[in-house]
Amino acid sequence: MTEVVIGVDLGGTVVRAGAVDQGANLLAVSQAPIEAHLGAQAGLARIIAVIEKTLRKCGNGHLLGIGFGATGPVDRQLGAIQNPYTLPGWENVPVVAPLSEHFGVPVRLENDADVAALGEYWAGAGKDVRRLYAITLGTGIGTALIYDGQIYRGLDGSHPDGGHQIIDPTGPACYCGANGCWESLAAGPAIARQAREILLAFPSSRVLDLAHGDPNRIDAQMVALAAREGDALGRAVIEKAAWYFSLGLVNIITLFVPEMIVLSGGVMKSVGLFMPAVEAAVNAHNIMVPASQVRILPAQLGDQAGMIGAAYTIYQNG
Amino acid sequence: MTEVVIGVDLGGTVVRAGAVDQGANLLAVSQAPIEAHLGAQAGLARIIAVIEKTLRKCGNGHLLGIGFGATGPVDRQLGAIQNPYTLPGWENVPVVAPLSEHFGVPVRLENDADVAALGEYWAGAGKDVRRLYAITLGTGIGTALIYDGQIYRGLDGSHPDGGHQIIDPTGPACYCGANGCWESLAAGPAIARQAREILLAFPSSRVLDLAHGDPNRIDAQMVALAAREGDALGRAVIEKAAWYFSLGLVNIITLFVPEMIVLSGGVMKSVGLFMPAVEAAVNAHNIMVPASQVRILPAQLGDQAGMIGAAYTIYQNG
Repeated sequence: MTEVVIGVDLGGTVVRAGAVDQGANLLAVSQAPIEAHLGAQAGLARIIAVIEKTLRKCGNGHLLGIGFGATGPVDRQLGAIQNPYTLPGWENVPVVAPLSEHFGVPVRLENDADVAALGEYWAGAGKDVRRLYAITLGTGIGTALIYDGQIYRGLDGSHPDGGHQIIDPTGPACYCGANGCWESLAAGPAIARQAREILLAFPSSRVLDLAHGDPNRIDAQMVALAAREGDALGRAVIEKAAWYFSLGLVNIITLFVPEMIVLSGGVMKSVGLFMPAVEAAVNAHNIMVPASQVRILPAQLGDQAGMIGAAYTIYQNG
Repeated sequence: MTEVVIGVDLGGTVVRAGAVDQGANLLAVSQAPIEAHLGAQAGLARIIAVIEKTLRKCGNGHLLGIGFGATGPVDRQLGAIQNPYTLPGWENVPVVAPLSEHFGVPVRLENDADVAALGEYWAGAGKDVRRLYAITLGTGIGTALIYDGQIYRGLDGSHPDGGHQIIDPTGPACYCGANGCWESLAAGPAIARQAREILLAFPSSRVLDLAHGDPNRIDAQMVALAAREGDALGRAVIEKAAWYFSLGLVNIITLFVPEMIVLSGGVMKSVGLFMPAVEAAVNAHNIMVPASQVRILPAQLGDQAGMIGAAYTIYQNG
C-alpha cells in the first residue's frame, strides 16, 4: 500500500487536500469552497470531508500524517488558526487536535506562505537552495524564507510578514497598522484601487470595458490584461505597482541576500509586466550587496506548492 | 601563560586591538589612528604594531588567533578589505594572509557590524538570545543578525546591509544607489544635513552656537545636544530622524521578528531622544507580528563589542 501524506492548503475561499508520496508526487487532489462565514465547525467538517475524498481517490493509501498550510496568522503552538482577516470569524480555531484525533496521525500547522516556499524548496524552482526567499503577490503579499531547508521563524515561532514592510510612509493606510506598506502599494487590491482613482483621466480606457462599465468591478487581472493590450491607464497603474513591488524586493535582497527569490501568486501571472522594473531596480541597488547575483525566478509548482510543501513538513520531521 | 585571542576593530579613523581571554575578558587594548589615505601598506604596518603592543601589554600571552572586524564591505573568501568608501584607497587589501603569516596563527576577517553583534551575543546584552538583531546608528547604519549563535550571511557569505533598506523613495540619493534608504534619512550625516537645511527658519537656534556660527561644522552630536536642551530646531530634526529610524526598525521586526534588538553607535548615545518614537512605532505595528514582544535594548559592551566579538570568531570556530 502506498504511503502518503496529505497536504492541506486552506485559503480564504477554497480548501484543497492533496495526497503526496515521498517523491513529492501529487497522487490525488480534492477541493471544496470553505465558506468561512458558515463558521469554523462547518469549515472543519468540510476540511475532513475533502481529506477523506482525496484518500479515497488514491486508493486509501497508508496515511503517514497531515501537513496543513493555512492563510495566516496561525498559532503553531496552539495548533489553531487565528485569522479573522481573510477567514471571517475564524479566531482561535483549533485544527491540529481535531484532525489528529479524527485521522489518528500527526498533524502540523504552518503559515501558507511558509509551506508554499517549502514546496518550491523540496520539489520546485528552489531545490536545495541554501537561502530561498519566496514572495507571493496576489490579494496580499506573502513572504517566506527557507534557510538551510528549514522555515525561518521569528520569536515564539512567529511568521515574519515581509508583505507589510513599509515602503513609502506617504502611502495608504493598511489594516496592518502601517501607511504605505508593500502590500498596500503593490498587491491586487492596490492595483484595482489605483486604476479606479485615475479612471476619470482615461475615459476611453479598456479597463472600464473589461469591468462592464462598473468601476467597482475593476480588479487587478483586468488592469494587467489592459496593460498587456497597450491600454494607457493599465500601463500607468501596472508600471507604478511594479515600481513599488521592485522597491520591496530590493529591500528583501538588501536584508537577506538570498541565493534565489521565487515569485508566485495571481498577480505574478503577469510577471512579464513586472520584470523590467524588477531588473532595473536590482541593477540600481548592486553596490552594498551582490544584488545582481540573486536569481529571481517564477515559482514552478504553481498552486500545488502549498499542498506539496505542507506534506513535506511531515516527511521532513519524520 | 594566559591564552588570548586578539580582536581587531578597524574603523574609518582608528584601529584598535584587544587581547581577549576565553571568558570574554578584555585584558589589554591598544589603538592608533589608521590614516587610510597613507595607503594600505602603511595601514597594515600600523595594524601589526597595534597588535604587538597589545600582546606586550598583556605579558605576551599565548596567542591563539586573530579575529578581525573591519568597516565593510569585506571579502571573507579573499580575506581582503574592499572599502574605498570609508577607507579611501583600500580596495582589495588582503589582511588575513599577511597577519596570519606574521603572527603564525589563524586569522578570521568579518564585517564590523557582524562582530559587534557577536560580541553582544557572547558577553553583552544578547547573551544566548536565539535571534539577536544588532543596529549601529552613527555615521552610517550597520546591521547584523546573529541566528543560533552564528552570523547570518547572504549568498557567497556576503553581509546583508539593512542600513540601506529603502524607507522613503522620495528621500535623498545615497551612495548605495537608493533614494531614501534608512541611512540617508536617520544616520548622523542626515541629521546634520537636515539641521543645515532648516537653519534659516530658526535664526536663534542653539545649534548654530554649538557650531561656532559655521553651518558646515554642524554635526549630529550638536543637534542632539541642542534637542536635549529643548532647542526647537534640534528637537524638530531629531524627531524626524527618530521617526525615520523607527520605520526602519519596524521593518526589521516585520521581516525578522527577533527576540531582541540591540542598539549602539554614536547617535545612540542620544537613545533617550529616539526611544519615544521607536516605542510608538512598535506599538502601532503590532498586528501582523508580535512586535511589542521584541526586546529593544542599548548594547552593553559599548565600543568594546567589536574587539570582543572579533575575538569570539576564533574561540567559536576552534
